[in-house]
Amino acid sequence: MVTAPTSMLAVMAHPDDPELWAGATLAAGAAAGSTLTIVLPRHGDPRDTEAAASAATLGATLTLMDDLTASVLSSFLLELRPEVLITHPSTDMHPDHRAIARTVNAALPEAVIATGHPRRIYSCDSYNNLARDGHPLHLPVIIDATEMWDTKMQALAAHASQPIMNHLGPMAHTLGRLHGSRIGTTYAEAFAPLPVLGRLPAEPSL
Amino acid sequence: MVTAPTSMLAVMAHPDDPELWAGATLAAGAAAGSTLTIVLPRHGDPRDTEAAASAATLGATLTLMDDLTASVLSSFLLELRPEVLITHPSTDMHPDHRAIARTVNAALPEAVIATGHPRRIYSCDSYNNLARDGHPLHLPVIIDATEMWDTKMQALAAHASQPIMNHLGPMAHTLGRLHGSRIGTTYAEAFAPLPVLGRLPAEPSL
Amino acid sequence: MVTAPTSMLAVMAHPDDPELWAGATLAAGAAAGSTLTIVLPRHGDPRDTEAAASAATLGATLTLMDDLTASVLSSFLLELRPEVLITHPSTDMHPDHRAIARTVNAALPEAVIATGHPRRIYSCDSYNNLARDGHPLHLPVIIDATEMWDTKMQALAAHASQPIMNHLGPMAHTLGRLHGSRIGTTYAEAFAPLPVLGRLPAEPSL
Amino acid sequence: MVTAPTSMLAVMAHPDDPELWAGATLAAGAAAGSTLTIVLPRHGDPRDTEAAASAATLGATLTLMDDLTASVLSSFLLELRPEVLITHPSTDMHPDHRAIARTVNAALPEAVIATGHPRRIYSCDSYNNLARDGHPLHLPVIIDATEMWDTKMQALAAHASQPIMNHLGPMAHTLGRLHGSRIGTTYAEAFAPLPVLGRLPAEPSL
Amino acid sequence: MVTAPTSMLAVMAHPDDPELWAGATLAAGAAAGSTLTIVLPRHGDPRDTEAAASAATLGATLTLMDDLTASVLSSFLLELRPEVLITHPSTDMHPDHRAIARTVNAALPEAVIATGHPRRIYSCDSYNNLARDGHPLHLPVIIDATEMWDTKMQALAAHASQPIMNHLGPMAHTLGRLHGSRIGTTYAEAFAPLPVLGRLPAEPSL
Amino acid sequence: MVTAPTSMLAVMAHPDDPELWAGATLAAGAAAGSTLTIVLPRHGDPRDTEAAASAATLGATLTLMDDLTASVLSSFLLELRPEVLITHPSTDMHPDHRAIARTVNAALPEAVIATGHPRRIYSCDSYNNLARDGHPLHLPVIIDATEMWDTKMQALAAHASQPIMNHLGPMAHTLGRLHGSRIGTTYAEAFAPLPVLGRLPAEPSL
Repeated sequence: MVTAPTSMLAVMAHPDDPELWAGATLAAGAAAGSTLTIVLPRHGDPRDTEAAASAATLGATLTLMDDLTASVLSSFLLELRPEVLITHPSTDMHPDHRAIARTVNAALPEAVIATGHPRRIYSCDSYNNLARDGHPLHLPVIIDATEMWDTKMQALAAHASQPIMNHLGPMAHTLGRLHGSRIGTTYAEAFAPLPVLGRLPAEPSL
Repeated sequence: MVTAPTSMLAVMAHPDDPELWAGATLAAGAAAGSTLTIVLPRHGDPRDTEAAASAATLGATLTLMDDLTASVLSSFLLELRPEVLITHPSTDMHPDHRAIARTVNAALPEAVIATGHPRRIYSCDSYNNLARDGHPLHLPVIIDATEMWDTKMQALAAHASQPIMNHLGPMAHTLGRLHGSRIGTTYAEAFAPLPVLGRLPAEPSL
Repeated sequence: MVTAPTSMLAVMAHPDDPELWAGATLAAGAAAGSTLTIVLPRHGDPRDTEAAASAATLGATLTLMDDLTASVLSSFLLELRPEVLITHPSTDMHPDHRAIARTVNAALPEAVIATGHPRRIYSCDSYNNLARDGHPLHLPVIIDATEMWDTKMQALAAHASQPIMNHLGPMAHTLGRLHGSRIGTTYAEAFAPLPVLGRLPAEPSL
Repeated sequence: MVTAPTSMLAVMAHPDDPELWAGATLAAGAAAGSTLTIVLPRHGDPRDTEAAASAATLGATLTLMDDLTASVLSSFLLELRPEVLITHPSTDMHPDHRAIARTVNAALPEAVIATGHPRRIYSCDSYNNLARDGHPLHLPVIIDATEMWDTKMQALAAHASQPIMNHLGPMAHTLGRLHGSRIGTTYAEAFAPLPVLGRLPAEPSL
Repeated sequence: MVTAPTSMLAVMAHPDDPELWAGATLAAGAAAGSTLTIVLPRHGDPRDTEAAASAATLGATLTLMDDLTASVLSSFLLELRPEVLITHPSTDMHPDHRAIARTVNAALPEAVIATGHPRRIYSCDSYNNLARDGHPLHLPVIIDATEMWDTKMQALAAHASQPIMNHLGPMAHTLGRLHGSRIGTTYAEAFAPLPVLGRLPAEPSL
Repeated sequence: MVTAPTSMLAVMAHPDDPELWAGATLAAGAAAGSTLTIVLPRHGDPRDTEAAASAATLGATLTLMDDLTASVLSSFLLELRPEVLITHPSTDMHPDHRAIARTVNAALPEAVIATGHPRRIYSCDSYNNLARDGHPLHLPVIIDATEMWDTKMQALAAHASQPIMNHLGPMAHTLGRLHGSRIGTTYAEAFAPLPVLGRLPAEPSL
């Protein structure tokens, strides 16, 4: 039996991003005892209220930042010392996603040198599994999301101001089935490991 | 604590390939209770005797095949039902390595459809971490090899007819340090997951 | 209004491959007036009978070959002169698929130099959209399959000896939704253009 | 017969970029009835006057912007609602080209969510078909430019302050011949489709 | 002043391949004192006579082989011990080109282990600079071909039975201009270094 | 005998970067008569004093810049006119490295158009040979560093405030052995050529 990370931090661009790209993995971590934190830029209501409801569903502490700069995030990381950090890919097609990926990357060196945390960083999926250049994202770390799929979709539904029913929900379903089919389960979420100052995650065994 | 695979099978081209590319991972599996099997084409002595001594060091059962065809290997797989199979990359620069990779790939459908095994397949490293086109091999599954490094090098030394001291040993050391440095340990071995009829390995968590 | 190709030829490995990877595109071509031909290696019954029923559903002429060699296929191409040819990717994970891709490639030079046909060649999708190395297949030519989806699934269902309900059908559904979502429709099929002696397809406009 | 897009917008960095990378495709669109718009940062004379003459040759409306920011461009897009948008690749070696690609990307979400336009986006070629990392640009959408080649070269010649005769003209000729040779015509221009919030262009048929 | 290799060997599929992909580089080597050898499968006349005339123009010794197998080529290499070997890319779209690339690769281990030769291996260009998957070939070793361009084209013209004037000559011209433009000369030829049992070419300086 | 470049300029992010990624190549150039310049952002003491000692060991002139902007660097390049420029890869995982790569790229057009210099640009290695996405960096230009390895390590040791003994030194050793093993020497450094306004380096011969 593999234990979950002691703590997980998702730093994302929009209030519904944590659910869309990592909701089941985050909820599974929380259920297994991980301390779960979500950091988002403050968007104002109704989106911040929706984000709070969604975070509660996932079992996460939500931190909304007025000014999500590298400096602010670095200070936050120095305090939080998460074991795992999840963020957007640097090749994401959405400019807000890429901006967050850059901010996370810029915040890392100080925090990692001072504390050794986060120990592992992963980028998540994006719209229809596509990178900015139109190629599919290669996400080799695939996590079974079947058990927590209902929780993910319930958290996603909290974003009532967004087009969940006719757009984001079906897309999440298709991506969940795609990744699930690749590991022989019903649903999965997929990630790519990123190096932290030259360090990649180790696997315990094949 | 992650348990090792119940069984591991390495199908490689030359008698010293299992040690060079996966010796520590195989030995660690055997030490943790995996049933370990090595399949090689028969080379004649002294190489087959060296292979037997090396396999004993790793804790593996050695099977030398006079005619390592897809059909023969498929029958072998139907019987053995290994959980994990390791072989050469299909983009290896050595023609013998690619031939083994093709044979393994051709033997899979019948065995997998009939038994569901092997459940996971990985390709290993190659000379100086280079693919046939001169690009580095991307091997995202990195396994700490520090504890079993001496065993690996001892097994490698059994191939006394080969240029171990001045060529293969130093290369294994450099690759072990490269992969080790990437996960913050002294030595590591690295692998790439391959799909088996559309199925890739699942990760238990981030 | 774009006219369909005057003729389309699918050369595939197994009786259910044309439906799985290109069934809606083929059926749409037939419905629009394309002369549609499917070439498969003969498998014996019940699979050949299933293939015949499926081809009839798609509107295709089925040719089963006892010995699908490059030479035989080249002669067939010299006679048929198809405008479009669809086959498996050369990086497919299934050894039978790659063998067909090699045979098609080997049959092309003589036919193309003598007749200028096929004019355009495309490779199709594979299991869970994965290439042999575990990366997603990049398939930039995406064709709306919504209108012909029922025909595709009906043709697929003709392969009653195969695990359609619990395995191939759901996979086709997931891939159809994935590609469909990428072009904003319900279902799609996706392909990659391959060069024929240096020639790639031209687009009429952006 | 394929109809041209109803409207095309080229957003480029320098006054001669629209001609260099997309001149024939733009002129062909205008000739077929597309409403054609070119947006450039204002450069001052003589370059702006040259740009106006060149735009007239192509059949385009020229808009010179004093401050080509994402916000300004987004407002422009909300008004113009172009069917097709062409810009530089995000991997272009020229910093000005990449800056425009970033600005276009940043301007898209608001415009696309509000209006659904632009419907399709393409990146164009760059100096000697090279990306920033020295690899060739992969541009799978190749458009026959033979008929409009003279118009393109005439428009390019309007940039009299630039080294057209001894540098840019010959490079355009070589790239036009390269892409043309790939589709069996005399000249062509080539593009890559980019996703717009997860949506890629659909092909009407193979 | 860099000295040319002491000896160069081109192993290609068709009589006009050495000229098309490496004619100027080979001729420049011969002019600088390299011992130049071309190995081709025997094609029968008129092609073999054309090959002989072309080889004479380049300054090469021509060896036509009735049965160009790995074993035959390996024996040939053991005798010839070339410093540099040029062959087709393993990703070439032409099946004959790939077959030669496989044969060369299969012949290497025995020759290289016994003699240390060839010391450096390069793959050459292909039709319209395209690989089998339709992507451009990345050929980072670019050699100025301007001085020997006339010799190359004269050698190419010796293949009078082939479509030189209307097809191969213009393609060679376009590729020569493309690669030349990338290094700021009139014409160039381009190659990719391939590893020989893990060894790549060293550069003397930046 | 190949002559070294007449002048080499390294523009890097941190005081120990020139030694880590290019120290032997720079020292070899200086020893062969190249005018060697290192540009770094000013860091304050003790790092600037360490940088000065290290530059003296390499044989370089050190320029510390208070405000290393594209404009400042462009002016510097207009004056210095280096033949070769080395900088970080644009895909580096360290945000400071990428910022320098962007600054260098932004400074190039004006300098290159006005002076034709730098004539050749190369990106260097990074932490454990990894790019930002966790893939190995492909660095095809490999330079023997054996003769100058002691000088490189001596220069690196000048950065006494940094973790040389237990971290950076061993990493440099491993990377030096990896690249050295690939060209059959003890140590090497590796680089990738980057295009300068469409121009790549030419090779004198194979």
